[in-house]
Amino acid sequence: MKIGILTSGGDCPGLNAVIRGAVIKGDQIYGVKFAGILDGYRGLAEGDMIPLPRKRVRGLSFVGGTILGTSRSNPYERGGLENIKEQLHDNEVDAIIAIGGEGTLSAAKRMADDGIHVVGVPKTIDNDVAATDYTFGFDTAVAIATESIDRLRTTAESHHRCMVVEVMGRHVGWIALNAGIAGGAHASLLPEFPVSIDQICIWVNKAHNRGRAPVIVVAEGFAPLGQEGETTSRGMGNDGRLRLGGIGEQLAPIIESKTGIETRAVQLGHLQRGGVPTARDRVLATRYGTAAIDAVMEEKWGHMVALHGEEITTVDLHDATTELKSVPRDLWDEAGILFG
Amino acid sequence: MKIGILTSGGDCPGLNAVIRGAVIKGDQIYGVKFAGILDGYRGLAEGDMIPLPRKRVRGLSFVGGTILGTSRSNPYERGGLENIKEQLHDNEVDAIIAIGGEGTLSAAKRMADDGIHVVGVPKTIDNDVAATDYTFGFDTAVAIATESIDRLRTTAESHHRCMVVEVMGRHVGWIALNAGIAGGAHASLLPEFPVSIDQICIWVNKAHNRGRAPVIVVAEGFAPLGQEGETTSRGMGNDGRLRLGGIGEQLAPIIESKTGIETRAVQLGHLQRGGVPTARDRVLATRYGTAAIDAVMEEKWGHMVALHGEEITTVDLHDATTELKSVPRDLWDEAGILFG
Amino acid sequence: MKIGILTSGGDCPGLNAVIRGAVIKGDQIYGVKFAGILDGYRGLAEGDMIPLPRKRVRGLSFVGGTILGTSRSNPYERGGLENIKEQLHDNEVDAIIAIGGEGTLSAAKRMADDGIHVVGVPKTIDNDVAATDYTFGFDTAVAIATESIDRLRTTAESHHRCMVVEVMGRHVGWIALNAGIAGGAHASLLPEFPVSIDQICIWVNKAHNRGRAPVIVVAEGFAPLGQEGETTSRGMGNDGRLRLGGIGEQLAPIIESKTGIETRAVQLGHLQRGGVPTARDRVLATRYGTAAIDAVMEEKWGHMVALHGEEITTVDLHDATTELKSVPRDLWDEAGILFG
Amino acid sequence: MKIGILTSGGDCPGLNAVIRGAVIKGDQIYGVKFAGILDGYRGLAEGDMIPLPRKRVRGLSFVGGTILGTSRSNPYERGGLENIKEQLHDNEVDAIIAIGGEGTLSAAKRMADDGIHVVGVPKTIDNDVAATDYTFGFDTAVAIATESIDRLRTTAESHHRCMVVEVMGRHVGWIALNAGIAGGAHASLLPEFPVSIDQICIWVNKAHNRGRAPVIVVAEGFAPLGQEGETTSRGMGNDGRLRLGGIGEQLAPIIESKTGIETRAVQLGHLQRGGVPTARDRVLATRYGTAAIDAVMEEKWGHMVALHGEEITTVDLHDATTELKSVPRDLWDEAGILFG
Repeated sequence: MKIGILTSGGDCPGLNAVIRGAVIKGDQIYGVKFAGILDGYRGLAEGDMIPLPRKRVRGLSFVGGTILGTSRSNPYERGGLENIKEQLHDNEVDAIIAIGGEGTLSAAKRMADDGIHVVGVPKTIDNDVAATDYTFGFDTAVAIATESIDRLRTTAESHHRCMVVEVMGRHVGWIALNAGIAGGAHASLLPEFPVSIDQICIWVNKAHNRGRAPVIVVAEGFAPLGQEGETTSRGMGNDGRLRLGGIGEQLAPIIESKTGIETRAVQLGHLQRGGVPTARDRVLATRYGTAAIDAVMEEKWGHMVALHGEEITTVDLHDATTELKSVPRDLWDEAGILFG
Repeated sequence: MKIGILTSGGDCPGLNAVIRGAVIKGDQIYGVKFAGILDGYRGLAEGDMIPLPRKRVRGLSFVGGTILGTSRSNPYERGGLENIKEQLHDNEVDAIIAIGGEGTLSAAKRMADDGIHVVGVPKTIDNDVAATDYTFGFDTAVAIATESIDRLRTTAESHHRCMVVEVMGRHVGWIALNAGIAGGAHASLLPEFPVSIDQICIWVNKAHNRGRAPVIVVAEGFAPLGQEGETTSRGMGNDGRLRLGGIGEQLAPIIESKTGIETRAVQLGHLQRGGVPTARDRVLATRYGTAAIDAVMEEKWGHMVALHGEEITTVDLHDATTELKSVPRDLWDEAGILFG
Repeated sequence: MKIGILTSGGDCPGLNAVIRGAVIKGDQIYGVKFAGILDGYRGLAEGDMIPLPRKRVRGLSFVGGTILGTSRSNPYERGGLENIKEQLHDNEVDAIIAIGGEGTLSAAKRMADDGIHVVGVPKTIDNDVAATDYTFGFDTAVAIATESIDRLRTTAESHHRCMVVEVMGRHVGWIALNAGIAGGAHASLLPEFPVSIDQICIWVNKAHNRGRAPVIVVAEGFAPLGQEGETTSRGMGNDGRLRLGGIGEQLAPIIESKTGIETRAVQLGHLQRGGVPTARDRVLATRYGTAAIDAVMEEKWGHMVALHGEEITTVDLHDATTELKSVPRDLWDEAGILFG
Repeated sequence: MKIGILTSGGDCPGLNAVIRGAVIKGDQIYGVKFAGILDGYRGLAEGDMIPLPRKRVRGLSFVGGTILGTSRSNPYERGGLENIKEQLHDNEVDAIIAIGGEGTLSAAKRMADDGIHVVGVPKTIDNDVAATDYTFGFDTAVAIATESIDRLRTTAESHHRCMVVEVMGRHVGWIALNAGIAGGAHASLLPEFPVSIDQICIWVNKAHNRGRAPVIVVAEGFAPLGQEGETTSRGMGNDGRLRLGGIGEQLAPIIESKTGIETRAVQLGHLQRGGVPTARDRVLATRYGTAAIDAVMEEKWGHMVALHGEEITTVDLHDATTELKSVPRDLWDEAGILFG
């Protein structure tokens, strides 16, 4: 039996640890072979695969990135279902472990519905997949964002400035919430809870009046209340004029002009998704990897591995791809007590 | 209303974040005052306390250690219950938040039974308190141990040596298990699962034969099967002769002589319990702090805060101090697949 | 005798270590007192000063930022020389240690020429002061930039992307050069050595053709050959139109369109100048601090401390503020061998 | 032309960066080929070598350890000069770059005197080679020791304990001196400057009386004045009885009993010599590598590369192996002002 593994979508610390976990358990317990499918679904559609013996995964638990490469391709490109079946047949691959985010898992679901033997492993740095408590990469992203806040705070305090730190989180604010609490920020702005520019300035002034250099963490997907149409992501605005940078760079000059406090923005961007995973992410990713090969042996096609409490289980891919896990109101309220 | 806070027992990353969380929420939501009780129960028994205004806790989420100091005292020393009551009365302290491990919480339980208003916050780097899923400090300890293993591995591989890394864990092996998986160790030796020297050497040889430099993680409380009486912790052995170092230093020469592979030991010791907490520990500690002041306001005397899944709840201190949380057999077996 | 200390200009890791070094040696060896002048020359012009006893500087060697605050003020504002003399007289300050960059030191020079007792300590993260081999903060900036490159590389490789990393260096490329070598970049673009867009694309393609994800480090002050007028720093361009971001963000789309390789930019910005200093910067800053108090006691007014080889010496402030230390051609050529 | 490279002696961060620097410049500028000689002089004596194309060294600047392996062998074992010549001839190796410490370089010197084409690259974590200002690995060791002191300090302060931190430095105290200053220690004990136990206790008490938790850094080769014969390194003492641990573990109980202050020791050991090199060590090691291949092309047999100020030069191996670089008295005195 030979199992193909692929990583798809954005880079995420822990991808290699999943691969390693699956290969070691598959080799040691089930005696199966592995093929590395290169660059996600591109490699599947083109039959671009390499042998993946145990020797190839050694030492991978602490290596960032993915040795298999990744892309944002669709497996149905270049020939649809027939092509997929042919490529699997030609490469003697009996089943696929697809590691990726919502788009990847949706495609995996479709393939499973089409009779392909596929199980999923969820990957979302933003922690926005409802069907699992956590996924690998999130802890590392929070750690990097927090370390950056620690660092920026000293400069903010030396200059009596306000600092706006933009972190990842297009639809949900888990990273902003956690890094905000851990870094002792004076506000965290989440996509789930739009607040007005005036409210933000109240928080900034409150911290400033206590003698602090205000630190505001903002998720990239946040839009201030009452101005959803005006502030937009990088690119063209509604009025066709070019916008500067992300939400952090948009907020900084507004805060400065409204409060009179010098304000600077920093966008962490790709720094949050690369590099060596935290110990916790390595353990979780490894456990996902060993659980994924179990799921394959149990023929749980169309399912993905998931963390519930301390247990790894499997859930239907359908559940994993339909609902977004938002920050609940009470957690946000609780965090709000620490702000301002 | 004035609430006393104390930290007791061994140092642990996150203590200051608990203090900060409690004081900010108490100040902001409940309008209560705080007293810092110095050096744990010593300060309680001697009435050694300082005012703890909000200003005093600013920036504390990322500071290691405890600003209140700690000790291993017993509150009933120096005058028993009457003295405790008198000190609280003299300092106008209405309730106590006691942050500490098993011994601290047992004393808190006894005080609660004696009518003192006390709630607990569990602190155990080893993660051995059954009544809570996790406590702060554990994630930091695993992170430091893992980082050390990463570092030691390069030397081991350059010299083709076996490296024995001793981590904390007197009664349970959670740190050894997690750091072992995260660091890609070839074996983790836990107090819960004694194995023989011969088994250890089999693992060492297996890794060595695959061309690897064997890395063995061992919890300080591990004793090899069949030799429980012979290898002992630092100090006098059964035969009255002085023993060298911890279990790691005891194992290294035995492994070297039995396998012929040069073997070195490193004991991480206090490095695991000091310094800046991880982002995750800061968040958990902060949540414990805000939950502890809630528990005080709800008069949950004799209870402690605890983490169940993602929720913070309270449990009876009795439950917290009677049962040890060991690594379960199936987790150990699962990890074993990655070893050797 | 009482000596005023001030920090002026941009934040820089090691400022607190200089203050601590000066105060400890002044207290211990010379028995002098210190005043902390707040927010650089603003505090001098306004007489805003605090006592700075030894107790106040304890533990400061590893604390980022400056406990004295900083600003970009001019001491001659608000009343000129007479005001400066009056403020010093009123606060009983006999001499000043001014820690800062070119602007700060120029003002110190002018004050010294006007008869004020002042010695300087050079501060330049960019390492562009000719009169000293190194200053504190530079090593930390290179360390952070290098760590970021390590992190970004894994993402670049997973996605087969080109990554452009913009680091500090307005006039000189020391950070870009060192971080580029340490991070194993495929090119470092320095203000001193303009190269054409075509040359950059040759390097990118060369790395790409060897199967690598090209990593390009660019100093903020770099301008590509033949386009000096077109690419400009953030703000209005020559044509009055708004420009996007820094040089990194300008280069990325050009490289992508010319090479066909997906290219992303990251601007490290303020991350490079805050936070805990490296061990090396702490030692150098501490030595500067103890040397500065020696210079005061030796009445070396109008001079600053400087590092020559392993020796701390003093040089005339005139020399320190007239010449920029650029990266020499041969170092650049030597580094070029590692690129492409 | 084919050049053999070998790494010999203890592991040291930066070894791989030297190898990479030499191979890239050799490949790119001189068009020469490389052989990797495995496990230092063992591989030379046994002819155990592998091809070392440019592709093999990619990404190596930030990888700890040595891809070539290391050992403490002597090239003259197994057949003497004739064997060495034969192995070089059989493997078509024309010259050797030998990277190592005093023993390695002495053997290289002997080979050069015997007509073998060999140049050296100094490697000494302790920074004790007189003929060069610095070598790679030292900065990383100081960084790790300093980070550990930062971490241990919080525990010491929480418990009001004295902490003794043993760092590397068998004959010289450079690491202890620098880490002591950077970490804000209250004393650094160096092999070059023996002080009495009573003096150490004076420093401990002085810091304690100022309300600090005393932190003492001690180099492994330090011996207290008047007790040189009594305290010995790990192993058998003069009286034939087993000794506990290193000098740190020997000092701790003595300090505790003399001062009455609870005292703990931590020995950093191998943690200081493995893992990812600092940015500075990577740059220095890379420059050594490119300079070493230049030295080969210039036929500087019997010489080694060295750092003088900011310049890389070459010096006769004879000079490099005869004199130890000790910490000078004035630096020690200057540091002493910061202690106590």
